[in-house]
Amino acid sequence: MLVHTIKEVREIVKEWKKQGLSVGLVPTMGALHAGHKSLMAKSVEKCDRTVISVFVNPIQFCPGEDLDKYPRTLDADCELAQSAGVDLVFAPSPKEMYGEGHILSNDFLTYVIPPYFYTDKLCGKSRVGHFDGVCTVVNKLFNIVQPDFAFFGEKDAQQLIIIKKMVKDLNIPIEIIGCPIVREESGLALSSRNKYLSEEDKKEALVLSKILFNIKNCYKKGITDVKALKETAFTFLNENHNLEYLDIRDNDTLDEKTVADNNSRVFIALKIKNVRLIDNIMLGS
Amino acid sequence: MLVHTIKEVREIVKEWKKQGLSVGLVPTMGALHAGHKSLMAKSVEKCDRTVISVFVNPIQFCPGEDLDKYPRTLDADCELAQSAGVDLVFAPSPKEMYGEGHILSNDFLTYVIPPYFYTDKLCGKSRVGHFDGVCTVVNKLFNIVQPDFAFFGEKDAQQLIIIKKMVKDLNIPIEIIGCPIVREESGLALSSRNKYLSEEDKKEALVLSKILFNIKNCYKKGITDVKALKETAFTFLNENHNLEYLDIRDNDTLDEKTVADNNSRVFIALKIKNVRLIDNIMLGS
Repeated sequence: MLVHTIKEVREIVKEWKKQGLSVGLVPTMGALHAGHKSLMAKSVEKCDRTVISVFVNPIQFCPGEDLDKYPRTLDADCELAQSAGVDLVFAPSPKEMYGEGHILSNDFLTYVIPPYFYTDKLCGKSRVGHFDGVCTVVNKLFNIVQPDFAFFGEKDAQQLIIIKKMVKDLNIPIEIIGCPIVREESGLALSSRNKYLSEEDKKEALVLSKILFNIKNCYKKGITDVKALKETAFTFLNENHNLEYLDIRDNDTLDEKTVADNNSRVFIALKIKNVRLIDNIMLGS
Repeated sequence: MLVHTIKEVREIVKEWKKQGLSVGLVPTMGALHAGHKSLMAKSVEKCDRTVISVFVNPIQFCPGEDLDKYPRTLDADCELAQSAGVDLVFAPSPKEMYGEGHILSNDFLTYVIPPYFYTDKLCGKSRVGHFDGVCTVVNKLFNIVQPDFAFFGEKDAQQLIIIKKMVKDLNIPIEIIGCPIVREESGLALSSRNKYLSEEDKKEALVLSKILFNIKNCYKKGITDVKALKETAFTFLNENHNLEYLDIRDNDTLDEKTVADNNSRVFIALKIKNVRLIDNIMLGS
């Protein structure tokens, strides 16, 4: 079922709760792919009822980012959701979520701001304000749907860590479930932004997973010095790859490591032409 | 009943909800007086069960403010709460609310930040960050207790307006009930900080309510020019009164008025010696 208003979602979820059913939420920006499908499947497996939200959240896009051209494919999204066993698709308009008649900023709207220590690094460094927008909209979706569980992909690992931190800091009564990255056979991590890549770009984009897999192999062979691990990346990089960051950090605190351990995660971001891609891998699993 | 942990509150409220009972929350910093009692009475009247929180919230105090010497009177508070018909007193430690081992700031903790447009004026101007701390702790208390209704005094009118805005902006599923200011027979608005006043200071403190009542009288007589209304205050002020602000603003948006109307509220803050006092009045009621 597809609904567009907060009122409708609330009524449906209220009815489910009356019946004692557990509710899972998968927040998305649509343009759903097999990565999202794995999140929906996880929720359908764990919860009696599953809601997905489809909302391209304007306040998490920074100036110059791809808000207007971000892929919007609601019909296909609804089909995929239904095939995954989702019970309810919530696709609100920006007006439904933020009202109208004022500028979408912390000047006129209440924001949920994650700790600077978690947002001044990795993607937060180039995408200033991005995680403020993410936490604010996720908090709103949590309050609208009031699920028991919410499912997020490890693909956006910094986002997942920040949301877990938000839930802890604000005592939000929801359990956050992180789900593994889904990759093409080639190794490329699925992303809605892969649609921007030509076939040739996609080959170049394999550099992200190659670097990550290689670092993990080196770690498994006993190399724990972070500087040495990061230097192994240079074999793979060429002039088509505009590296933004390659960091090895603690998976809970995002502290930078000098010596890697099983709780370390490797994070990478780079641009192929104008398409910004991210990927990451845990060293210990 | 008195509990100190989040876990205990949640278990008790969960049990009430299972029974279909409605829950009211009165967030306080303790040092309860008849003003708080009126909030509790309102909740007891409206809801099946009433929780009050007693927590002197460190993150809403600014540097140099009275965090350490703020009155703490938990035994008396519990007695007053019981006499008012409150079912549960939640009095957590700072550690229970914020954990330990890190600095209490947005560097390391997720904050809920109300719009700058609402906080750059009135009390927010001198108490920078105060309302960020208020919104953050209130959001946490809402998530911990998950009440149906929450009760706040109009005494802190800017706070009430900001909390209503937060609830709207973040789609928090709780109804906020504002309750009228309780005054001594003299006109002095009740405040926990009145404890800092000597008998002589208390007489001087009547200037706040005198100014407000007089402005309201003038408005009722037909004067709507804000400049003229504000000028009537000078009759009452003397060298013992350190006026911080006297503003007439819209009761929903906090926009400054040039012509007063029934939805205008008069806000005043001034210091008697080192004690900062606030008061306010609606023109239209």
